Amino acid sequence: MIMSKILPMKFCSLCGGPVISKIPPDDDRPRYVCVACEIVHYQNPKVVTGCIPEHDGRVLLCKRAIEPRQGYWTLPAGFMELGETSFEAALRETLEEANARVKLLDLYTVINLPHVDQVHMMYRSELLDQDFSPGKESVAVDLFAEHLIPWDELAFTTIRQTLKFYFKDRQSGHFQLHTGDILKQGDRYDFRPGPSEVTSHQSSTSTQRP
Amino acid sequence: MIMSKILPMKFCSLCGGPVISKIPPDDDRPRYVCVACEIVHYQNPKVVTGCIPEHDGRVLLCKRAIEPRQGYWTLPAGFMELGETSFEAALRETLEEANARVKLLDLYTVINLPHVDQVHMMYRSELLDQDFSPGKESVAVDLFAEHLIPWDELAFTTIRQTLKFYFKDRQSGHFQLHTGDILKQGDRYDFRPGPSEVTSHQSSTSTQRP
Repeated sequence: MIMSKILPMKFCSLCGGPVISKIPPDDDRPRYVCVACEIVHYQNPKVVTGCIPEHDGRVLLCKRAIEPRQGYWTLPAGFMELGETSFEAALRETLEEANARVKLLDLYTVINLPHVDQVHMMYRSELLDQDFSPGKESVAVDLFAEHLIPWDELAFTTIRQTLKFYFKDRQSGHFQLHTGDILKQGDRYDFRPGPSEVTSHQSSTSTQRP
Repeated sequence: MIMSKILPMKFCSLCGGPVISKIPPDDDRPRYVCVACEIVHYQNPKVVTGCIPEHDGRVLLCKRAIEPRQGYWTLPAGFMELGETSFEAALRETLEEANARVKLLDLYTVINLPHVDQVHMMYRSELLDQDFSPGKESVAVDLFAEHLIPWDELAFTTIRQTLKFYFKDRQSGHFQLHTGDILKQGDRYDFRPGPSEVTSHQSSTSTQRP
């Protein structure tokens, strides 16, 4: 999982001409437009997808080998690639980061991060065997019971929020989709519940993790 | 809603140098890499988000003024923009295409379209007033009772599948998240249910609409 922003453009990726930022006719916001070939380059948010691999009441976490948040724990997740589905991406990332094979159960959290132009989609999943090990982006992979989750050493707010929902739902015996936004306010990251969260159950938190 | 593919790259958008397609070290798939500045340009799927605006048992549809699928009916939807959340994007598209104000209820369908590198997210929503009218991408906007839905004149498979789920769930009185993929097989578009659909209720269809 990389927290990089979308890159700005200086040159047209089709003809190599210079681009300027301007509002095209019939549009309402600035786009990069090529001065030479006049093509409009649209930039849009990206999807990060991953798994909550479960086995025997425990959850698999990966200790990050790389920045950002090196040494902190995360659920296996990463950018969705061209040509694949979000299901395939979640399975691939889980295999890459934890050498773990899972069966997807259901889409569990959908969280917007407008400050980095990302949508994070996490799937509940069932670990198919215990033959997991660190992939190249991880230094350790382990199963954690709820009381052993390293809450102060989690890498990202999405991960913390997803695990909070997970253990709360497990207690109630009813797993359901959770949606919301993570909003950066100075050094703080606030979770703002989505429309259905507000009516069904309030849950708002603030942390200093990205 | 535009069905365009991600553009190929010929030049680096940062330095204007030529790019080549190659597998970078520590990667497993070809990326556009700049020959001059060596930056790797990642390309990823885009998110399309929209609404199922409901009022008094009827659903709001827009007749498309533009290609693709000009003259066919759709739910208001479009590409998520930088800096916004999927909730905000769904509200904005509904306002732009139908001049309609809605209150979002819940995320209802999440459908992958790997052949166009898109993820479609549709929200159930409540129309706040009946003061709607065609936006610039629509020639007509109207409310449809279930028996009047123009099933043969719907613009996209995502829209058909979302409405099918919607009316089926309404009959059972229980709305729940639906996930799946739309797969292009020659001229045909098949809906493949997501992991939770397979266990809870089978639903697979095939059409010749994009």
